[in-house]
Amino acid sequence: MADSCDFGLIGLAVMGENLALNVESRGNKVAVYNRTTSVMEDFINGRAKGKAFVGCETLEKLVESCATPRKIMIMVKAGPAVDAVIDSLKPLLSPGDIIIDGGNTYYADTERRTKEVEEAGFLYSGTGVSGGEEGALLGPSLMPGGSPDSWPILKPIFQAIAAKVGPNNDIPCCEWVGPRGAGHYVKMVHNGIEYGDMQLICEAYAMLKEGLGLSNDELYDVFAEWNTGELDSYLIEITRDIFSVKDEDGSYMVDKVLDRAGAKGTGKWMSQLALDLGVPSTLVTEAVYARGLSSRKEERVKASKVLKGPSPAYSGDKKEFIEQVRQALYASKIVSYAQGFVQLQAAAAEHDWPLNYGDCAMLWRGGCIIRAVFLDRIKEAFDANPKLENLLLAPYFGEAVDKAQDAWRHVVSQAALLGIPTPAFYTALAYYDGFRRETVPANLLQAQRDYFGAHTYERVDKPRGEMFHTEWLDLRKDPS
Amino acid sequence: MADSCDFGLIGLAVMGENLALNVESRGNKVAVYNRTTSVMEDFINGRAKGKAFVGCETLEKLVESCATPRKIMIMVKAGPAVDAVIDSLKPLLSPGDIIIDGGNTYYADTERRTKEVEEAGFLYSGTGVSGGEEGALLGPSLMPGGSPDSWPILKPIFQAIAAKVGPNNDIPCCEWVGPRGAGHYVKMVHNGIEYGDMQLICEAYAMLKEGLGLSNDELYDVFAEWNTGELDSYLIEITRDIFSVKDEDGSYMVDKVLDRAGAKGTGKWMSQLALDLGVPSTLVTEAVYARGLSSRKEERVKASKVLKGPSPAYSGDKKEFIEQVRQALYASKIVSYAQGFVQLQAAAAEHDWPLNYGDCAMLWRGGCIIRAVFLDRIKEAFDANPKLENLLLAPYFGEAVDKAQDAWRHVVSQAALLGIPTPAFYTALAYYDGFRRETVPANLLQAQRDYFGAHTYERVDKPRGEMFHTEWLDLRKDPS
Repeated sequence: MADSCDFGLIGLAVMGENLALNVESRGNKVAVYNRTTSVMEDFINGRAKGKAFVGCETLEKLVESCATPRKIMIMVKAGPAVDAVIDSLKPLLSPGDIIIDGGNTYYADTERRTKEVEEAGFLYSGTGVSGGEEGALLGPSLMPGGSPDSWPILKPIFQAIAAKVGPNNDIPCCEWVGPRGAGHYVKMVHNGIEYGDMQLICEAYAMLKEGLGLSNDELYDVFAEWNTGELDSYLIEITRDIFSVKDEDGSYMVDKVLDRAGAKGTGKWMSQLALDLGVPSTLVTEAVYARGLSSRKEERVKASKVLKGPSPAYSGDKKEFIEQVRQALYASKIVSYAQGFVQLQAAAAEHDWPLNYGDCAMLWRGGCIIRAVFLDRIKEAFDANPKLENLLLAPYFGEAVDKAQDAWRHVVSQAALLGIPTPAFYTALAYYDGFRRETVPANLLQAQRDYFGAHTYERVDKPRGEMFHTEWLDLRKDPS
Repeated sequence: MADSCDFGLIGLAVMGENLALNVESRGNKVAVYNRTTSVMEDFINGRAKGKAFVGCETLEKLVESCATPRKIMIMVKAGPAVDAVIDSLKPLLSPGDIIIDGGNTYYADTERRTKEVEEAGFLYSGTGVSGGEEGALLGPSLMPGGSPDSWPILKPIFQAIAAKVGPNNDIPCCEWVGPRGAGHYVKMVHNGIEYGDMQLICEAYAMLKEGLGLSNDELYDVFAEWNTGELDSYLIEITRDIFSVKDEDGSYMVDKVLDRAGAKGTGKWMSQLALDLGVPSTLVTEAVYARGLSSRKEERVKASKVLKGPSPAYSGDKKEFIEQVRQALYASKIVSYAQGFVQLQAAAAEHDWPLNYGDCAMLWRGGCIIRAVFLDRIKEAFDANPKLENLLLAPYFGEAVDKAQDAWRHVVSQAALLGIPTPAFYTALAYYDGFRRETVPANLLQAQRDYFGAHTYERVDKPRGEMFHTEWLDLRKDPS
């Protein structure tokens, strides 16, 4: 039994179980361990029955069961539990063994752990895993980072278990991301983009439901059609599905779901890090805030009784408006992805990660929640120009937004007039209109800061970096 | 000489100098110290000449010069320098002496330092100081927190040096805020609100300049008039002034200022903490992001050459539109303050600070950058209902926004159609429209999360806290 396993996995919650089954299904023998032994036993006697698994009651047995260099994946709750497992493993491992963290770990923890594990003589891989339970079982998107030497060893197994895309269904959604925390950072940005996509879909839903009064059946048809074009994606597909699901009493389930959105924190992380980097990732942040506002349900109920607004009914052509909402969603989505990649670039520069942005797009092409045909275009844009500063500057996306902008502007203006809250549509348009401008009104803001705080300013007619101060108070027109 | 001083001050940069002069001007003898002795000597032989100052070459002399209980204010760069000064002072002080940090300190540092200084047997006061150089000299807004026992001792001096407001000009803009870091937190929220106010003014400027083509002379007149009504405030006043200031060649200075906004970080802190608290402080965050986008000038120049947009010229009635922009600014400002107070309430609950929100409004009524007549209304709202959950629920503000909303919606819709970026106007309106709704489209978002991640959801027809899961994939309509 000893040394016979190709892979070890610690933590048999549903994601861990499914990943273990996926690895085994590709011809590997897998050792599994769970802190609560009965969970491991239930798995071995249940879903794993008859398959090439070795159930281990102890970490010692798990380590002994694996052939060197060992590949041991941790699937436990992100945080101190990961450190505890690593500390327990260290005395048991041999030089060159690989510890993999497949959890939703904050990238800075992975930066630290990579160094610590490498200093102890082992290799470490912080690997982003996306795709939910189903993806873990059948083919997730995998975003491995960590010790570069771990990659050649992990590559065969990881690319075998990953989702496949491409015309021949043979391009794995798994490629080396970068050193240390790069894999988990890319996973975080994936999740942040997911926040944006979901919020945009909710805003489109609100415009169609409140503005046009579409029924769930009609919404099903709209999203079914949208899923055949530029918006073709997993999230549009499941949105379509949701509008068809009925409760036992025959009523639509979506109308039974309470409008209080939860969150696990990756969108918040991405926002906070964007603020630290000074990059405007407005879509994810508005999406996080919108979830926050949704969760304040009691206050909203109270407010709804006193604060007034216009009638949300749209009076123009229904079919035309549906298409305009689609274009608003598409243009906003492009802005959202543009912001996500700008943040990735800024983080890569800060942490010295040599990221390949086209590869990142392909990692998300299948297996994960934001999988979409659209990502092929992003891959092409970065292949054409690996130093592309902003997706909006790629001809394909610049033209796509240009084509959509009249409709987008119409939808945003109508949202304001009809009183339907569309913070993500709004902020995407504000970003586009700010980004495409040579001058923004920040000259006034700098003058204000210099007026009240002598913060100084640069001048349009002088070299950058040369600072000026004006005694505004002394030079102003006498206000009397 | 020993024991004769009423107040000690460490750090003679301009804010420290001006505060020291202010304290002295109210009949106090002040001991001053600066790490670089020549700075202290220049001050003593310069602006302090003939006044009741004692120049100290060492911290020992500073401490000896002050009567007990000593009141020693640190005005050095926020961060490790403050800890260094505290560590140097500790061996020199007597029990009950007070260390005051008047810098722009992150509130969590003040939480920690209050405990550390109290454990050493002294008192600590983290005090927010706003008003810039002029305020420090003539009357700042002071937001003292820290050891509660420090307040009765500091109160006479602090209230004497603070700005005064009210019909008889006798209400000091200085009142006890709360324990530990409460003073610096309130100061941070003040600064974040300042970010929002400045961004809103810039957006109004953009609408008037680009949409209506107003000249700087016309803008001067507009802001002069705005300053006589609901918007009467320091920031509107200095904006008016700015449009009158000319360069040596006779051209307007504001047009010479480069449109790249700087930032010192308090707006970022407030945003990051809002995200941690789960409260939607969207105004400050959009303002921070707008500064970030403005600072990416080179990319914007590049983008301006390829990305197109509509003509920004507004075709409606000019005078009417100016008034509509004013109302958009006013309504957005109300939302911004509502968000700021919601964040204060959430932070107070988290940290167990018994804040008085009406007092907070009065602290900002004079002396500081966001001083405005408007704050009287906020004070009245919290006096009428100290547990008010949101300013928008106060009759005065609810009615004010209702009165303004048609104009506000018109301006936002026009910004979208004209292609003028107004992220703060947008997000304020989205917040208002989300907050005033009993239902938001987050039901769809929760359904999505349950579909792909089995995150579960609550139901509208079941008690809160009871979680449900649906096998959406199994129940969906066959998409074929």
